[in-house]
Amino acid sequence: MSKPTPLSGFPELLPAQRVVEREVIASLSRTFELHGFANIETRVVEPLERLAKGGEIDKEIYVLRRLQAGESQDGPSDSGLGMHFDLTVPFARYVLENAGKLEFPFRRFQIQPAWRGERPQEGRYRQFTQADIDIVGRDELPFHHDVEVVRVMVEALAALPVPPLSVQLNNRKLIQGFYRGLGIADVTAAIRVIDKLDKLPAEQVAAQLVEVAGATPEQAERCLELARIRVPDTSFVETVRGLGVTDDLLETGLAELAAVVDGCPASDRVRVEANLRIARGLDYYTGTVVEIFMSGYERLKSVGGGGRYDALADDGRTTYPGVGVSFGVSRTLVPLIADGVLSGSRPVPSAVLVALVDEESRPGSEQVAAALRARGIPCEVAPSPQKFGKQIRFAERRGIPFVWFPGESHEVKDIRSGEQVPADPDQWAPPHGDLRPTIVTKEQTS
Amino acid sequence: MSKPTPLSGFPELLPAQRVVEREVIASLSRTFELHGFANIETRVVEPLERLAKGGEIDKEIYVLRRLQAGESQDGPSDSGLGMHFDLTVPFARYVLENAGKLEFPFRRFQIQPAWRGERPQEGRYRQFTQADIDIVGRDELPFHHDVEVVRVMVEALAALPVPPLSVQLNNRKLIQGFYRGLGIADVTAAIRVIDKLDKLPAEQVAAQLVEVAGATPEQAERCLELARIRVPDTSFVETVRGLGVTDDLLETGLAELAAVVDGCPASDRVRVEANLRIARGLDYYTGTVVEIFMSGYERLKSVGGGGRYDALADDGRTTYPGVGVSFGVSRTLVPLIADGVLSGSRPVPSAVLVALVDEESRPGSEQVAAALRARGIPCEVAPSPQKFGKQIRFAERRGIPFVWFPGESHEVKDIRSGEQVPADPDQWAPPHGDLRPTIVTKEQTS
Repeated sequence: MSKPTPLSGFPELLPAQRVVEREVIASLSRTFELHGFANIETRVVEPLERLAKGGEIDKEIYVLRRLQAGESQDGPSDSGLGMHFDLTVPFARYVLENAGKLEFPFRRFQIQPAWRGERPQEGRYRQFTQADIDIVGRDELPFHHDVEVVRVMVEALAALPVPPLSVQLNNRKLIQGFYRGLGIADVTAAIRVIDKLDKLPAEQVAAQLVEVAGATPEQAERCLELARIRVPDTSFVETVRGLGVTDDLLETGLAELAAVVDGCPASDRVRVEANLRIARGLDYYTGTVVEIFMSGYERLKSVGGGGRYDALADDGRTTYPGVGVSFGVSRTLVPLIADGVLSGSRPVPSAVLVALVDEESRPGSEQVAAALRARGIPCEVAPSPQKFGKQIRFAERRGIPFVWFPGESHEVKDIRSGEQVPADPDQWAPPHGDLRPTIVTKEQTS
Repeated sequence: MSKPTPLSGFPELLPAQRVVEREVIASLSRTFELHGFANIETRVVEPLERLAKGGEIDKEIYVLRRLQAGESQDGPSDSGLGMHFDLTVPFARYVLENAGKLEFPFRRFQIQPAWRGERPQEGRYRQFTQADIDIVGRDELPFHHDVEVVRVMVEALAALPVPPLSVQLNNRKLIQGFYRGLGIADVTAAIRVIDKLDKLPAEQVAAQLVEVAGATPEQAERCLELARIRVPDTSFVETVRGLGVTDDLLETGLAELAAVVDGCPASDRVRVEANLRIARGLDYYTGTVVEIFMSGYERLKSVGGGGRYDALADDGRTTYPGVGVSFGVSRTLVPLIADGVLSGSRPVPSAVLVALVDEESRPGSEQVAAALRARGIPCEVAPSPQKFGKQIRFAERRGIPFVWFPGESHEVKDIRSGEQVPADPDQWAPPHGDLRPTIVTKEQTS
């Protein structure tokens, strides 16, 4: 069979690049678990009727068909199943299906691929891995979980070796209350229009507010004033009050947003801002909204987001409110890896190559390897008894830092420094930093 | 939306059950990495022409179609992509695609789901997770890697808390050489017939050897004699020689099988046997063949298998021989979890629930939690300031072993023993065994 070529939109990683992804996933998981989030995975398919609800998104669903089933005369022979395009829809279904067996509030994290049949471009893939955390309640979910879930994601992101991130926060109650207090006719339409501020110039947005949302030019101007507020602290509360709009929902929104901003530990690695133009187009958010951006990679648009939904799931009798944030693992890492900003220190787990004198002494080399492994040191035995110089170059090409020479008196060589010392297979260990492959970061020069 | 029901063939795990799967995957990964196997993941789809080669397997492939694309007049609107049905096909493609960037021999492990559209039954799912290890060479791959790959899988399986496993080994050269030396007309047909020994009575198999493979009744009887040999050591070499067939290929097969059996550390947890009826129907195996069975779960048939293929991949100019073993993670764990043989010790990572006196003191409880987390102790703060008795029952329902009572003098209670002692948030730690959820095994009573 001929040499295959990559499939557009389906990025794959070489072994050293995969080190980066695995370490990032391990780091995220560690933080999520420290905060009591349980891991789940859902099957990759959902019944179409569950996926195809609402919005334009259903254009991009991959549907499964059995290859041979097409021979029947029943038409398209679909299985009725589609691949999930995010982790929220399957999670909501999982909660409904297992509600009787879960304890609420239920904290879960889920790190899995999702699929969309859309046109691939940088940061947009047909298969991409997401890391989601959500907290879901039965009937009710106190507001303090909004603070918690954003704080946990901020803490998790701060531990990643990626360029500085910006977590931008807003609250739908704040926007809706402000528009309502201002007297705008169609609040929902106004939110949709304001959401275009990153694509259209301000005057066009103002004009659309008048045309589409029934605002007066003065009201439109006030909407833009609100949308321009962007601060790293809770000073927005006074600024918004200074705009002279009063409304109960606005007050609730201000208090909630202030609590989330206050509750998040900002750092050099993760900036936290109130950005009052963030709306997130999807209709189901009802309070806190979040978007995450990466410094130097603004062209990717958001690399994560989420918020509060008062009805994450609903089975007709019980409503399950939730709050969650999703981080785009592929969307973040694939460009960083492609740009050489992140790489793995070596493509193999082995810290040691045990050299081989001749085929007859393979059992002796295997014994050394077994002794090292018994103490948690990953290693491999040279595949063939070439000259030692060749065996050293074999290790070098894989980034294996140490070569072990077995014999009556064992010796181990650090092939970077060339230093070679006597060593005991039952005692010697590499420096901690050499034990496993790690992420190497290169500062960007842009 | 109404309450969803499970999809047949797509098993999902509750959070405590997922603990089992994650720990098993972590344990397998640990062993594989100690032996220098690098982790990769491949995209879940392959071009159909790469999946649909050979055999009956193509009946079971799921093909992807874009939901809205069906509106065009170009017929079935398939994407030309199908979901992989194992991890070998995508691995072979990955090797060809990236050959210039890989170092050979290339050791990799891959733990991912695969999909088959077949009728679901116990141990056979439409989505199932596999754990594969393979070693692949360019142009050549010395035989000692056969010993290595089987030994690594045996070691990895021995570390799992599952019922005893049986690794059954054979060698295609041994069978082919024996049949050839015996003078059987159609060796390949004979192998296919002998492979039916677990479904048909011996006399029917003998009759088919005569009819289909052109054997005489005497030759058929010798084939059955060979197939009856099953020993936990290398004594099969003498037994086979006692059957009086001589052939070069047979001798090579005997020596190779003896080396693999000798090289595997048998234990109470993993029995290793030479079983000369194991053939593995698929045509591409050319030497070592392996099948894995689980004690008490023989009805699942094999829970893993693999072998040597002299042409794992081939791009027309270069051939990549390989040897590998695949372990069925879902096939093994889903029935064990369903039977209650394996379960997770608790459904949440939290080792501690920090109690809450009232909403005003939430920051104080959060501070205690932060101090514990800083030392790697997973915990959560009670969601609401109920009576302490209720908060303790909240912990109990989740299997959280400790409840922390903040105050001027902090105390922590082991809710299993009822013991409550003063504790310092910057010092106290739970016993190591309580830190994380673990796998609980129940001896089977069958």
